[in-house]
Amino acid sequence: MKRRSCKYDSLILATGASPVNLPVPGAKELVGKGVHFVSDIENAGALLDAAKSSVKKSAVIVGGGATGLEVAVGLKKLGVDVAVTKRTPHPFPRNLDPTMGKIIVEHLEKLGIRVLFGKGIDRINGTQKVESVKVAEETIECDIVVMAVGMRGNTKLAESIGAKIEKGLVLVNNRMETTVKDVYAVGDLVRTYSRIDGTPITMQLATSAYRQGMTAGINAAGGNTPYPGALNTFLVCVGGLEIASTGYFLDMAKGLGYDAKAVSTRREVKPHYMPGAKEINLRVIVGAKDGKILGAQAVGEQGAGWRINLLALAIHGNMTLYDLMDAELSYNPPISQMYDPISQVAEIGLKRLRLGPKKCDKVFFCK
Amino acid sequence: MKRRSCKYDSLILATGASPVNLPVPGAKELVGKGVHFVSDIENAGALLDAAKSSVKKSAVIVGGGATGLEVAVGLKKLGVDVAVTKRTPHPFPRNLDPTMGKIIVEHLEKLGIRVLFGKGIDRINGTQKVESVKVAEETIECDIVVMAVGMRGNTKLAESIGAKIEKGLVLVNNRMETTVKDVYAVGDLVRTYSRIDGTPITMQLATSAYRQGMTAGINAAGGNTPYPGALNTFLVCVGGLEIASTGYFLDMAKGLGYDAKAVSTRREVKPHYMPGAKEINLRVIVGAKDGKILGAQAVGEQGAGWRINLLALAIHGNMTLYDLMDAELSYNPPISQMYDPISQVAEIGLKRLRLGPKKCDKVFFCK
Repeated sequence: MKRRSCKYDSLILATGASPVNLPVPGAKELVGKGVHFVSDIENAGALLDAAKSSVKKSAVIVGGGATGLEVAVGLKKLGVDVAVTKRTPHPFPRNLDPTMGKIIVEHLEKLGIRVLFGKGIDRINGTQKVESVKVAEETIECDIVVMAVGMRGNTKLAESIGAKIEKGLVLVNNRMETTVKDVYAVGDLVRTYSRIDGTPITMQLATSAYRQGMTAGINAAGGNTPYPGALNTFLVCVGGLEIASTGYFLDMAKGLGYDAKAVSTRREVKPHYMPGAKEINLRVIVGAKDGKILGAQAVGEQGAGWRINLLALAIHGNMTLYDLMDAELSYNPPISQMYDPISQVAEIGLKRLRLGPKKCDKVFFCK
Repeated sequence: MKRRSCKYDSLILATGASPVNLPVPGAKELVGKGVHFVSDIENAGALLDAAKSSVKKSAVIVGGGATGLEVAVGLKKLGVDVAVTKRTPHPFPRNLDPTMGKIIVEHLEKLGIRVLFGKGIDRINGTQKVESVKVAEETIECDIVVMAVGMRGNTKLAESIGAKIEKGLVLVNNRMETTVKDVYAVGDLVRTYSRIDGTPITMQLATSAYRQGMTAGINAAGGNTPYPGALNTFLVCVGGLEIASTGYFLDMAKGLGYDAKAVSTRREVKPHYMPGAKEINLRVIVGAKDGKILGAQAVGEQGAGWRINLLALAIHGNMTLYDLMDAELSYNPPISQMYDPISQVAEIGLKRLRLGPKKCDKVFFCK
């Protein structure tokens, strides 16, 4: 394409991110020869073709995030043996506490996927094509390697015009402006901030990108509206298991100086006598003194995503366990419990934190 | 059972409600001879037996509320021809606007149920057993009549000790106390009040009864905690269709003096390319000046209940369309849209009410 010059009043950078490759021997050399990425339609299509024509019917996934686990389940369904490796021992360390991560590992193993968490890969072997992968003490024969170790923001253009970069991402303000006048940036290439307290966070999700885009669009066109900050609301469905979270996980909240506690429950999402009643694991991170909701995690075959949506709205509204307790949720046996896991976790939390019942300040009769 | 005297420090009345029978010829006389109620395990069991042994295989349901419609679908599944009659023309007139009610009528007709709304019954014919029902100009042959026209609070005991009754229900304050000292009342026999503005409402649902019970229990034991009021959050599943609502419907809000508007959308709950993506009809009742959420209604095969739960929490938190717009909901194609119907209805509402984008008062860079 020929380069062209375009004048602008306002410029919005939405250059996205590119998949990261690990700096291990063989990784770079074997791209396109068995080393795959999954970040767009084309490379996803190439992986699908490779899986169908695979001779060894064996794949190693590097990375246990949303993409890694979705691909693992997909390949397994296509009849490929799958091992998933990741350097850190727990899945979704930026979203889930280790206790929730355990449930996911058990689920993956039940699906017949080898889980090698806490074990990074040392090298990818092969010359013309991938032959095997060395993981810790083991060499795994395979002809497919999927690199799913995250995305690096495409910040080159922003850098070239002098925009400030922090931790590899473009620094923006709450109007989505970069440090360069009239230049905005949105999506996977920017460092965003928490809606809870303004803490800078990396959140390369469509949900934040979309709202950032709206904000930048309004402001670039002459408006003046803020991006409200991100909650990092996250949902992935892995082999029928919904994994969802929002806000801070326990160690992050503590690390930011919060006197935070976690409260958990495990409860059926419908009355036990209804067919197909599944259990959900729900965990809420709260301030120990006031019961303020700082984060939440849910894992289960049904309703994890929507319970997390509810808790995301509760965080947005500065709500506490008292508000969850008062939340008047709908009840119909084919769909829900009268005493939802959300009500239960609120009650458990208030009791455990010794936060007594809400006080009645003013007594009144309804007319 | 022998009468016994019990002394009390605190007394909690939880005497519930009993199904209402219509004052039409034949209704009283034919109870147990083809006229059924569905309010407990026993009478539900009797109806099931009657359906199985029915000769005419024809039933008339009187009442188009949650019980009436659930029973209609159940009888239809058992091979019984079903006609549902109700005096008012729209289903759920205390929960839904007529435009949402229409969708339900179409769904019932698709299930093969005769819908005779706006037509009360004139008489039930038969001497030893139900022979037919006269509805408007028509006489429908049947051997089963189900009375599902509501529940009357069992207030006799409360009345006998002098507790004040209003509109047939026990008057309570926000501590769940009746007008008689140390006597509390909870559940289907009390008149409760709206959480939005304290307006007295009748809400004979398990969800309010449960919280009222907790409140009365704490206070009767010496505590001092308020019942927060009811939102009338409602969910029923009729032949695979979720019907849900919370807060005020449009005419009720207007009747209470609100400058209220309704905003609607109809949108798929998952991306269109996902298998099984169903449409949901979502309607939000808002204040015209400030976009404050006053009520919401949802009808669809998937996700109506949980969207209404979210909107119930939004009402609880005094939220506006701006908050719905900012709500960071989770996104994963097998489960949800990135641009959820909730976000869409918020955007439509803000535009239609000419409420401009939120103002950015303070610009800051994240560190």
